[in-house]
Amino acid sequence: MYSNEIKWSSSEKKIARDAFDKAYQNEIEEIENAIKEKVKKLEMASDIWSLHDYLTKRRKEIDRKYDYRYSQLLFVFRTLISQNYISVNDLSGLSEEKISIIQK
Amino acid sequence: MYSNEIKWSSSEKKIARDAFDKAYQNEIEEIENAIKEKVKKLEMASDIWSLHDYLTKRRKEIDRKYDYRYSQLLFVFRTLISQNYISVNDLSGLSEEKISIIQK
Repeated sequence: MYSNEIKWSSSEKKIARDAFDKAYQNEIEEIENAIKEKVKKLEMASDIWSLHDYLTKRRKEIDRKYDYRYSQLLFVFRTLISQNYISVNDLSGLSEEKISIIQK
Repeated sequence: MYSNEIKWSSSEKKIARDAFDKAYQNEIEEIENAIKEKVKKLEMASDIWSLHDYLTKRRKEIDRKYDYRYSQLLFVFRTLISQNYISVNDLSGLSEEKISIIQK
């Protein structure tokens, strides 16, 4: 079954939104902590440009990754779980079919 | 007289290099201090993207501004003085002709 044929109930939409936001917040906190570590070691111009390169990379990744279209969402959750920003338990309440696609 | 017709003695080259490096270092320290201030107030994703935007802007400005070709250097110094990264005293020892172009 194609993911764009899958129906989402309103309770599933709520679970999905919460998990999506939680992953995003976890990733943002990770970046904040990384910035703080890098700023402690800021000494020369190359450290500034290295911080800039890091933020450019993370921003691009985030812009690409957090795609809330329902046709994409199961694949997005698969990625977010594999990267440890959420666990499958955060999606508890989704249909078995959805969980099985996420865990494929 | 066009600036690319101006001759630079070796002692002038040394003065120019030192002033150029001093301005660059002052500007880098300004950016470092700004980063540290911004990081103190880092709370949400938009603060991270705002830091990224700030670094993108400053990096572009610096890449454009610090042009060490002798044909450009007097104009570069004019800018660096107007932005308070060095003073005309840092260029003491350059010929009157050069100082007069810088101060035009």
